[in-house]
Amino acid sequence: MALKNKVQSVVVSVWRNNALFLSCSRTISTFATGFDNKILKSPSLVSLDIPDVWSSNSAGYSESSTYKPAREHTARVIDGKQIAEEIISNVANEVTRMKKTIGKVPGLGVILVGERKDSLTYVRNKIKACEEAGIKFKLTEFSDSCTEDEICDAIMQFNVDQSLHGIIVQLPLPRHLNEEKIFDVLKLEKDVDGFHPMNMGNLAMRGRKPLFIPCTPKGCVELLIRYGVEIMGKKAVVIGRSNIVGLPASLLLQRHHATVTIVTALTANPEEIAREADILISGVGVPNMVRGSWVKPGAVVVDVGTYPIEDTSCEQGYRLIGDVCYEEASRVASLITPVPGGVGPMTVAMLLHNTLLAAARKYNFV
Amino acid sequence: MALKNKVQSVVVSVWRNNALFLSCSRTISTFATGFDNKILKSPSLVSLDIPDVWSSNSAGYSESSTYKPAREHTARVIDGKQIAEEIISNVANEVTRMKKTIGKVPGLGVILVGERKDSLTYVRNKIKACEEAGIKFKLTEFSDSCTEDEICDAIMQFNVDQSLHGIIVQLPLPRHLNEEKIFDVLKLEKDVDGFHPMNMGNLAMRGRKPLFIPCTPKGCVELLIRYGVEIMGKKAVVIGRSNIVGLPASLLLQRHHATVTIVTALTANPEEIAREADILISGVGVPNMVRGSWVKPGAVVVDVGTYPIEDTSCEQGYRLIGDVCYEEASRVASLITPVPGGVGPMTVAMLLHNTLLAAARKYNFV
Repeated sequence: MALKNKVQSVVVSVWRNNALFLSCSRTISTFATGFDNKILKSPSLVSLDIPDVWSSNSAGYSESSTYKPAREHTARVIDGKQIAEEIISNVANEVTRMKKTIGKVPGLGVILVGERKDSLTYVRNKIKACEEAGIKFKLTEFSDSCTEDEICDAIMQFNVDQSLHGIIVQLPLPRHLNEEKIFDVLKLEKDVDGFHPMNMGNLAMRGRKPLFIPCTPKGCVELLIRYGVEIMGKKAVVIGRSNIVGLPASLLLQRHHATVTIVTALTANPEEIAREADILISGVGVPNMVRGSWVKPGAVVVDVGTYPIEDTSCEQGYRLIGDVCYEEASRVASLITPVPGGVGPMTVAMLLHNTLLAAARKYNFV
Repeated sequence: MALKNKVQSVVVSVWRNNALFLSCSRTISTFATGFDNKILKSPSLVSLDIPDVWSSNSAGYSESSTYKPAREHTARVIDGKQIAEEIISNVANEVTRMKKTIGKVPGLGVILVGERKDSLTYVRNKIKACEEAGIKFKLTEFSDSCTEDEICDAIMQFNVDQSLHGIIVQLPLPRHLNEEKIFDVLKLEKDVDGFHPMNMGNLAMRGRKPLFIPCTPKGCVELLIRYGVEIMGKKAVVIGRSNIVGLPASLLLQRHHATVTIVTALTANPEEIAREADILISGVGVPNMVRGSWVKPGAVVVDVGTYPIEDTSCEQGYRLIGDVCYEEASRVASLITPVPGGVGPMTVAMLLHNTLLAAARKYNFV
């Protein structure tokens, strides 16, 4: 696949819609009072942020685990691939109808930084799905050593590009780049990944609606609904609290009236808490962390984690495995998503759905 | 106390900073696609919102409860009143310093709708505290039958009033008023209650900071910190998921690295879940719902609920009681907040702190 660098360092100044967000975040990131520790004992929130380091130790698994797999039982497999295909096909129908009715098609701008194999695969899948659905896409690539300003400039070009209704920045970004600064530039109405704090706040708050629900949690809940899993009143445990998976998944499940617990790398007894879940969603990126002993018999297990491991027998030289030890968990759960073929394709399908939604909103196409 | 109506129905059009927020929320509230149910099975989020009806039944308490109070034990009482006074006194010192240094004082605009006794008491307490701290305040009152537009006009006047750095709308509002519409008008930089979705999103997301942390959760965490309660790695259970207490409390505790579970009125076994909490925060407004049997021995109990019950022996003709059955819970917990005199005064103190912060940010006063 040819991924061409189409970047031009033109500063686009016509993005006033986001000026307020930028000014807010810049104010808070540079503003520090001298009186704070004179009055309150509470520390600043950003100073509290520490990396979530998950390890086999924090996973709490040991050979002497009480887990005894029931070899005769096998969970029903949630076919994310098939459902995603169905959704993409339906999106394609709507795109065709839009083109016929108003002569427009949805467009997606994609920013890709660096050459991570998994990111390349994800972007390739997204482009392929766009092509399937008749959605136009524009790709802008950067090297690992690019600057924030270069990325922001590219986003600003996408912001004003009338043919693009959605914009995504493929994560993770190289560590030297400030994710917050980059996302603050992205026009809210084109934030089809739903990562803008305004979208997240509206997802969290009862009575409100975000412009876009983040694709991965939206895909997880769509799978649950399609497989007839009741969410209301059920105990859901979300392992991981990333801004792109764990946090929005917990917020979305709350909006669906589950009783939600968020397990972090600092949780003392993650296995015990996970085992209480009727619905267990894991998104931490630690291969096989969730063992069979973490799963309540009959629970529904949704594995968002993807981790590339070297495998020369595969075409790409690696294959993806999940957070969940599938072999063990599938003997305990009632329903389970595989990796690959579970949540991954749904994330892509939901991205197309959000892009269609963005275009439909712009053109008032119903 | 004289609460005078100072409303003028002047439409102020100089509040462009919030135009984007308004346009977003209006777009989503009026925009509905025809293809949504053709492609996804997931319902719209706002359609999912149902009232949280807590009852003695959902509280799960019965006479045959296994709760056996240890009469000899009494929890240490968290003195919110004393800590709040200390904070207000420190805010007052900073206000004096600000006045001396730059000739300015912080100002707070308060919108009060209707004549609920509890709201009148809260507003009276806030005004009294502002006076103590040397913070200017402006009060605008409305009758129960006022319109959204009247309130929005008043907020817009406050938005452009250079002497006001914070604005609050005392909740709850009468049912005929759309809270979302009213809060969307409020200028983000003056949202000292922290109820704007942009603030909520930034509170939720790691790596980000809201302009203001909502006062009640901020007060709860300040109490925990002052009493040496470790939050990191502890199990916290938040009962209730209101936009003003339960939701931001759960988000703030997560930022402090607790393992948080949010119990709703639809949770099947609230008592059982609450009993697992090292830190139990309740904010539902159902008197005495949280019994002694809901509390893990040694847990820290923070009672945000306030409920006015008639009591002719009191000056106001009523007194406030909390969500927690104090008599029972104090025999099980290690630390407990009373009602009144626990979280209530802290909410007021934090409002003053946020107002000071807003003014300091505006004048770059450190």
